[in-house]
Amino acid sequence: MRIGAIEAGGTKFVCGLGDESGRILDRISFPTEHPDLTLPKVIQYFQDKQVEAIGIGSFGPIDIRPDSPTYGYVTTTPKPGWGNYDMLGTLQRVFPVPLGWDTDVNAAAYGEAKWGAAQGLSSCLYYTVGTGVGVGVYSEGKIIHGLVHPEGGHMLPRRHPEDKFAGACPYHGDCLEGMAAGPAIEARWGKKGHELPANHIAWEMEAFYIAQSITSAILLLSPHKIILGGGVMQQQQLFPLIRQAVLRNLNGYVSSNAILDHMDEYIVPPGLGHQAGLCGALALGLAAWNNEASI
Amino acid sequence: MRIGAIEAGGTKFVCGLGDESGRILDRISFPTEHPDLTLPKVIQYFQDKQVEAIGIGSFGPIDIRPDSPTYGYVTTTPKPGWGNYDMLGTLQRVFPVPLGWDTDVNAAAYGEAKWGAAQGLSSCLYYTVGTGVGVGVYSEGKIIHGLVHPEGGHMLPRRHPEDKFAGACPYHGDCLEGMAAGPAIEARWGKKGHELPANHIAWEMEAFYIAQSITSAILLLSPHKIILGGGVMQQQQLFPLIRQAVLRNLNGYVSSNAILDHMDEYIVPPGLGHQAGLCGALALGLAAWNNEASI
Repeated sequence: MRIGAIEAGGTKFVCGLGDESGRILDRISFPTEHPDLTLPKVIQYFQDKQVEAIGIGSFGPIDIRPDSPTYGYVTTTPKPGWGNYDMLGTLQRVFPVPLGWDTDVNAAAYGEAKWGAAQGLSSCLYYTVGTGVGVGVYSEGKIIHGLVHPEGGHMLPRRHPEDKFAGACPYHGDCLEGMAAGPAIEARWGKKGHELPANHIAWEMEAFYIAQSITSAILLLSPHKIILGGGVMQQQQLFPLIRQAVLRNLNGYVSSNAILDHMDEYIVPPGLGHQAGLCGALALGLAAWNNEASI
Repeated sequence: MRIGAIEAGGTKFVCGLGDESGRILDRISFPTEHPDLTLPKVIQYFQDKQVEAIGIGSFGPIDIRPDSPTYGYVTTTPKPGWGNYDMLGTLQRVFPVPLGWDTDVNAAAYGEAKWGAAQGLSSCLYYTVGTGVGVGVYSEGKIIHGLVHPEGGHMLPRRHPEDKFAGACPYHGDCLEGMAAGPAIEARWGKKGHELPANHIAWEMEAFYIAQSITSAILLLSPHKIILGGGVMQQQQLFPLIRQAVLRNLNGYVSSNAILDHMDEYIVPPGLGHQAGLCGALALGLAAWNNEASI
């Protein structure tokens, strides 16, 4: 099979061609500009690829309610040209094949459950910590949509006792994204994350905030695996700090061996590495194809 | 059909008989004592009822993993006699019919989705705020179990700025349950909740904590409905306080009409009233019967 995959990010688009085993055969990447510039590039890429389906994991907020008149739209983003933009419709008019459509992080969670770190498990969370913070939720073998879609990056953590930073989120100030995304790190310390030494207190604070969100998510959803990706999580020293903080927060309350005895395998980087997003989109495309075939 | 329902609470057991429409035809209630005293009463009640299935929604923590050797057990409770107790097995040996088994709050969430305030919706959360705080999660048409089961009552809220109370949870101190369950109210104010006037600051604090947990849950799961039950929620003045606090916390970020324009119908008391738990158990029994019939 030849399946198309689109990782539609706010900064860059990645388009790829893959097969039903999750293998990526070809890929291309370009910056996200106005949709009138970006979508033609996407279309041009797939024009001669003879894909049988395409999956799209998109930056948001997006409309993923199939019964909604604006299903397939990017909705209220301030990004020029993308507000209320019918991305799925634009693609469907050119490619009359099954299209899968979900948030970038839901796609990544799904891809990780299919082929990555959560392979064979019935649930996982996928966090991306980068320019923003996003959380994809896969539970009981399904991607969670609900009323709109998960927006776990805006959960409200307690403040670190030594943190004077007001928070950078225009909606919530000191929510998780406002305290822990890349721009918050830069605004707090006057340097980008990758310019700070690995033993800087910045990372303990970063772990403090991320771990609180993970703690809440464990308590509310009891996921089988927690996967942390995105630019900020390239700082490998964060993983042990986050694991320790989560164990401290839970304080033995959730009596599961996976958490108490195997924390190193419970909170992990993406099994699909930097391809998590694209493979997730591929998995959405494959699922769309299977759904259509089963009708 | 005649289906048995057991609401197995830490303080009292309610047993009932119902039908496939969710109607409760008969019920009985007795205090929760040592299981050697309590289970015989349960068995005696159902002995002559000719039930075709029984559903049990139980206090916890309990083992709800079907592939586990201790499936059906109450696990690590300090409650005398109940630690590591095989409740489901005890019932199964006497009643060779399909048995449904889940947490009390998951059962209530499921019952509300089937016959109550969330009828016809694909997701809801059920909070009980009483002696403890529990959260049942129903999402994408399924009860969420995950690794263990949801324990959302122990999520970690920010402290209310005027609250000096240390918190009453033996594991986490000032987690949601430690700050907002009935015993916390009594320890903080020296009076039981129902002895405090409706305009006491206790209720603003109570709403502050519950609303934070709801805010996190909305951001992480985007549920279609949030249902608040339990003894503390008999204080009706809490509902508007909680709704207002949730709207303040979200600050317009989740752009859904259900939240922005219909908050009064979004955060609500149980549609099944005080029968939410028993009807939930009934729904579990019906589901167990249907599962077995479909094999």
